[in-house]
Amino acid sequence: MIACYAAVAHGAGKPMVIEKIQVAPPGSTEVRLKIVHTSLCRTDITLWKNGNIFPRIFGHEAAGIVESIGKDVKGVQPGDHALTLFTGECKECDYCKSGKTNVCQKYGIDPERGVMVSDGKSRFLTEDGKTIYHFLGTSTFSQYTVVDQACICVVNKDAPLEKICLLSCGVTTGVGAATKAAKVEKGSTVAIFGLGTIGFAAAQGAKIAGASRIIGIDINPSKLEEGKAKFGLTDAINPKDHDKPVQEVIREMTNGGADYTIECVGNVNLIRDAVESAHEGWGVTVAAGLDESTKVLTVSPKNFLFGRWLTGTWFGGYKGRSELNQLVEKYMNKELNLDDFITHKLPLAKVNDAVTLMEEGKCLRCVLDANAV
Amino acid sequence: MIACYAAVAHGAGKPMVIEKIQVAPPGSTEVRLKIVHTSLCRTDITLWKNGNIFPRIFGHEAAGIVESIGKDVKGVQPGDHALTLFTGECKECDYCKSGKTNVCQKYGIDPERGVMVSDGKSRFLTEDGKTIYHFLGTSTFSQYTVVDQACICVVNKDAPLEKICLLSCGVTTGVGAATKAAKVEKGSTVAIFGLGTIGFAAAQGAKIAGASRIIGIDINPSKLEEGKAKFGLTDAINPKDHDKPVQEVIREMTNGGADYTIECVGNVNLIRDAVESAHEGWGVTVAAGLDESTKVLTVSPKNFLFGRWLTGTWFGGYKGRSELNQLVEKYMNKELNLDDFITHKLPLAKVNDAVTLMEEGKCLRCVLDANAV
Repeated sequence: MIACYAAVAHGAGKPMVIEKIQVAPPGSTEVRLKIVHTSLCRTDITLWKNGNIFPRIFGHEAAGIVESIGKDVKGVQPGDHALTLFTGECKECDYCKSGKTNVCQKYGIDPERGVMVSDGKSRFLTEDGKTIYHFLGTSTFSQYTVVDQACICVVNKDAPLEKICLLSCGVTTGVGAATKAAKVEKGSTVAIFGLGTIGFAAAQGAKIAGASRIIGIDINPSKLEEGKAKFGLTDAINPKDHDKPVQEVIREMTNGGADYTIECVGNVNLIRDAVESAHEGWGVTVAAGLDESTKVLTVSPKNFLFGRWLTGTWFGGYKGRSELNQLVEKYMNKELNLDDFITHKLPLAKVNDAVTLMEEGKCLRCVLDANAV
Repeated sequence: MIACYAAVAHGAGKPMVIEKIQVAPPGSTEVRLKIVHTSLCRTDITLWKNGNIFPRIFGHEAAGIVESIGKDVKGVQPGDHALTLFTGECKECDYCKSGKTNVCQKYGIDPERGVMVSDGKSRFLTEDGKTIYHFLGTSTFSQYTVVDQACICVVNKDAPLEKICLLSCGVTTGVGAATKAAKVEKGSTVAIFGLGTIGFAAAQGAKIAGASRIIGIDINPSKLEEGKAKFGLTDAINPKDHDKPVQEVIREMTNGGADYTIECVGNVNLIRDAVESAHEGWGVTVAAGLDESTKVLTVSPKNFLFGRWLTGTWFGGYKGRSELNQLVEKYMNKELNLDDFITHKLPLAKVNDAVTLMEEGKCLRCVLDANAV
């Protein structure tokens, strides 16, 4: 057992508490990882506030160093640098082997699972020996965590962990929404609805893919400016500045609609607007947000009759173990801007302040230093 | 002017009347076509019953022989055999040149247009000189009609006109829904919702594409039998035979969902069922029906999050002038079954009986002989 500190959540939305915990050794297919930097994602907040499995260690976007490995672990060594994967890749299930999806049947996301897949048990204990539950197979708001080998991606040791931890979730979702789900083509037009981390990352993805026009849509003027200054937007639309629906504005400025539209909030009305902003005949809409996915999308089937497309994306379509290094390399080559997503840095001990910053809309990504408790 | 007979509609849903009419010579980019065979499509009925432009000559699925051409017509000669195209292909607009869609900006469908695109006038007159309006740029329930050169496809003279007239609409829509919109792959699983002409044609398309399993869904047992006997269905589901939703039945029998699902009615609930019957991660749903496209589709965005796709198709994605001959050749090579779609043959004079047959569900396609008035 390793004793260390973690931010433990004891109830839905109740402030997380830095506590001393015990982290068990990894099982035979598992890896114990020393978390170096972890960033806060909106999904942590949503599932913490609406959850019912406590005590629990949240966090899923992180980079760390492998401390020890189970006897059946392959391709991972102690000392390796790695990113955590909330959506794993077992490489053995029908889905992983299909070559058609990055969803894994065995290590896919399950917010209701608070234990390890291998034996149905937790690797975390409180100081007095009570179980603390896992979160998304990662639980990164801790100085040490245990993850299955399917849930980490070994990365180039030259890559700075305090930056590339962002690739564990939001940035990858956005970049992949453009490059892998929409498959944005060189010279095309892309409209991006909602300028948070996913939206700005989608703009980066569109830029990497060679889009000639990247239109951001948000009701917050500062996001529009930020998107143009830092993330590659060529145009910005504030729906509040227009007295007609935003889809009409977009269709007019793009000669009939954008080639690709990407919704980055998960708002069902925005998904519909995104569909209606896509070009008749070939426009592709990608729903990359999650927030309101319990609601129902209502959309006229006529939108599809002449050949529009609607799809969604999960972690940007990236297979975590096989493909995530592509984005690490793009960061190292300066093709992908990660630095400007990091608006705040705090010690892990200040995780509740990071929540407040995000809820107040002041923050894209707050990177937490796991050493600083 | 040519004097001939046509079935003229004088009011919404009022029985069509065989009348002597006058057909003007073609304009400079137009072709006057002697209709040999025309078949009835459900869209004729829908737009006749709900229309407000009268008197009008309906009909859009037809094959004929070019009688004369305007001075600027290229690639068409008197005596050529041709199919009419309710969705034209000008080859000059941005859409036609994009290579991404078969929708044409200039000669796309417009049920509200009752005149020629070139001069905004009709080519049909009653015997006493009153205007009769056009329909979908084709008006094939007539012994002669005038169409723009964008709205005909010249075909192999060896192909029997009484068969290939079916390629002018419904069969092509269904075949293309599978081959061009869904892009069905060899060895894949396809589920087809609604077994009318489009549904059976989609089954044919799936078979041509090499699908290993083609599942038909209909509440009419005789359609299920017919689909297996004649059109390539390997499996049949009658939702009435199950006490769970059809999407669950399909997901169970296909190990998680069909690779492709094709909705062939235009019923918004069936489109949702088709989405939910597609395989998580990669399943593609094509909405190929039209009937209820004024209603609104309600569907959970969660269906798309893990990578399902929804699209629609228009005339099966076929560019009429450039590509429709591919299907004529498939018929000639016996790859495509057209014969079994022709359940009835009647003289044009009996067009109202053909309507009754289709409305009673007794008919896939009734081919009308334009000579027999």
